[in-house]
Amino acid sequence: MSEPTALSAELISLARELDKADELACLRTRFVLDDAVYLDGNSLGALPVAVPGRLADVLYREWGELRIRSWDESGWWTAPERIGDRIAPLVGAAPGQIVVGDSTSVNVFKAVVAAVRMADEDEAAREGATGGTGGTGGGGVGRRDEILVDATTFPTDGYLAESAARMTGRTLRPVTPAEVPAALSDRTAAVLLNHVDYRTGRLHDLPGLTAAVHEAGAYAVWDLCHSAGALPVGLDEHGVDLAVGCTYKYLNGGPGSPAYLYVRRDLQPRFDSPLPGWTSHTDPFAMRPAYEPAPGAVRGRVGTPDILSMLALEAALDVWYGWGGEGDGKDLGPAREAEAMIESVRAKSLALTDFFLRCVSAYVPEGRVECLTPTAHAERGSQVALRCDDAGDIMKRLIAQGVIGDFRHPDVLRFGFTPLYVSFTDVERAARVLAETLEGAA
Amino acid sequence: MSEPTALSAELISLARELDKADELACLRTRFVLDDAVYLDGNSLGALPVAVPGRLADVLYREWGELRIRSWDESGWWTAPERIGDRIAPLVGAAPGQIVVGDSTSVNVFKAVVAAVRMADEDEAAREGATGGTGGTGGGGVGRRDEILVDATTFPTDGYLAESAARMTGRTLRPVTPAEVPAALSDRTAAVLLNHVDYRTGRLHDLPGLTAAVHEAGAYAVWDLCHSAGALPVGLDEHGVDLAVGCTYKYLNGGPGSPAYLYVRRDLQPRFDSPLPGWTSHTDPFAMRPAYEPAPGAVRGRVGTPDILSMLALEAALDVWYGWGGEGDGKDLGPAREAEAMIESVRAKSLALTDFFLRCVSAYVPEGRVECLTPTAHAERGSQVALRCDDAGDIMKRLIAQGVIGDFRHPDVLRFGFTPLYVSFTDVERAARVLAETLEGAA
Repeated sequence: MSEPTALSAELISLARELDKADELACLRTRFVLDDAVYLDGNSLGALPVAVPGRLADVLYREWGELRIRSWDESGWWTAPERIGDRIAPLVGAAPGQIVVGDSTSVNVFKAVVAAVRMADEDEAAREGATGGTGGTGGGGVGRRDEILVDATTFPTDGYLAESAARMTGRTLRPVTPAEVPAALSDRTAAVLLNHVDYRTGRLHDLPGLTAAVHEAGAYAVWDLCHSAGALPVGLDEHGVDLAVGCTYKYLNGGPGSPAYLYVRRDLQPRFDSPLPGWTSHTDPFAMRPAYEPAPGAVRGRVGTPDILSMLALEAALDVWYGWGGEGDGKDLGPAREAEAMIESVRAKSLALTDFFLRCVSAYVPEGRVECLTPTAHAERGSQVALRCDDAGDIMKRLIAQGVIGDFRHPDVLRFGFTPLYVSFTDVERAARVLAETLEGAA
Repeated sequence: MSEPTALSAELISLARELDKADELACLRTRFVLDDAVYLDGNSLGALPVAVPGRLADVLYREWGELRIRSWDESGWWTAPERIGDRIAPLVGAAPGQIVVGDSTSVNVFKAVVAAVRMADEDEAAREGATGGTGGTGGGGVGRRDEILVDATTFPTDGYLAESAARMTGRTLRPVTPAEVPAALSDRTAAVLLNHVDYRTGRLHDLPGLTAAVHEAGAYAVWDLCHSAGALPVGLDEHGVDLAVGCTYKYLNGGPGSPAYLYVRRDLQPRFDSPLPGWTSHTDPFAMRPAYEPAPGAVRGRVGTPDILSMLALEAALDVWYGWGGEGDGKDLGPAREAEAMIESVRAKSLALTDFFLRCVSAYVPEGRVECLTPTAHAERGSQVALRCDDAGDIMKRLIAQGVIGDFRHPDVLRFGFTPLYVSFTDVERAARVLAETLEGAA
């Protein structure tokens, strides 16, 4: 890295000031970090310091000594709901609506199929009420024969929505989020949307789109993979029906850690899962041949919970609790404290991405990269995506110099900003190394 | 525990002799055990000594230091197939046919739906060949409108098979394994069977039933939860179509560790998954909007693999490799060595359950318990189930005395015998404590 110029000296100094004023800066020590600038937390969050010790206890004591007793005595059995409740304040959900388990893909399938079934049930009720006889609400495909899916979404959501459509006899219609309002009709059963686009970092209008979906009498399923832990989601406030998300990005749960499923409380009795596993049975140890779904969030469970990964995630979530206690002494209670923290995280996230864009624009010659991420705060997640033809090569060089982002085929440089451990000094350095690398490769 | 009588002295002495002659006895030190007699390995296998160290390395180095690079550099991405190949010899499968991931329940859904789709494809081909036009093989439900399911199976299999039936427009027909041959017809699309009954420990005739299913032109899906790691399964040899199983029982992968899916090699190109997640795409990082399934076992994957649990399982499987090297010096290669070991495990398993039944019959008054497990070796898995009205209470007392089995509602005492770490001395003690407990409670 070259010597700072007058321009970079100014930005470096500004970065230091911003770091000094950062009320989240104290959290950085809760993660295992090194000299690299880690801007790939939107793909895999850094290791929280608390995780290895907790997992050693799970292994040696809970599994090794207590063994089978741990299902009760160590709280293994209830971990999916308990950890769901730890995630809940971060996405604006009251307790009892989130269950952790399976992958995001599997949860997308559950949510979309369940949403279609709710739409069918509504149609059957409507037909019953109006005395209609021409419908097929009693089992076949009714009037609501379409599922809309975000055409720009992470591919797995589209693949699973396609399978859900195929297995419920619906047509899958890919549309951009902007096209959703016009595409909605009384044929729409469910809409699957991504809160933040994995490629561009664009934040979509969850309140507005959810309201439009409801206006059309359909159900909204949101994928929160790239927003949960980076910004307030407001699931309850905005009346989202169903949501899914992963926990290994901004929630730092570890590689491939279990995903989660949110089912709004009033919809839970109507959640008719396509994957009705034994752990979602109302009395699982009665081992009854007939499936009877449990009430509440538990209904979203499937098989035996994957305890090692799940408890690593639980330890990773500790970082969201107890921050207020270290701060200004307000006693808000854990959930309110986590909600307050996510507001603070969002403010820092925007400050980080603003500062990155400012540094990039100061250091990188005009036209060398194109920014795919919206500049408007209301449309920006917690990442910046830059397009350039040689993105694959550039990212390799960046990584070799300790600036870790990632490359998305065919020409996108992605930089994710995790406010819990990324500093403004990191951001300035990343932009400076990027500029030098782009210049060197030009 | 009371003093040994002449009878128990004889059996204790016999147990010692059997332990001395046990060629697997050396493996006991590879597990974390204590003074208890652990006969619940058919529910949760004991902690292998190798796991905590391996997981610490995964946490500190692979996740903490290498972070995102570990998907390539630490082999995370290919773990599901690699670990599948480690399990393969234990269930009689050549490499490239097993993929690890998801829960058993989720894999049951994949397997049953895929089997029904194969049956549909066969019907469509048959109709095409005969010029038939009356069928509905082109998309609707054809002649093969039934799924048979083992009515005595672990409930989750039945629940998921019911969902698979509902979503493919089939009828689910529960039958006992004994009734399967008579129930098979040209209406049968798929049959889901359990290799070993979780309750009684009865081993079903996998070769014979699979042949009968094939004779009827249907597909056989086997659940190996209670057989894999306890006895040779012979998937390839017996032409099984699809199989699923968990890894936390006789494979000791840890609480809720990932399950696996076997798809016979020649059926892989026809495996049409109802859960087509991005990691089963032929080019996952191209992020294409259209799903194109990968060839081979990879096609059974869904979402991002759950690395912590998966690599704990991989370390747990080490116990099956390298045993021959400690033994008689034959150099068989790892897969053949694991196959040889599972034969030895089966021999010891039968010797353990035989000895347990002998001790129970020597110590427990006639009629106090009823044995639900078949006495014929060909019909016995690796557990013994005893029925008595006060089973719940008896199991609590046994556990308090360090004999860990489990209770199955309403009246079953289950004792699982893991040949890797259960000794004949353990078995005699368990039977003696059981007899005393039954007497005390009588």
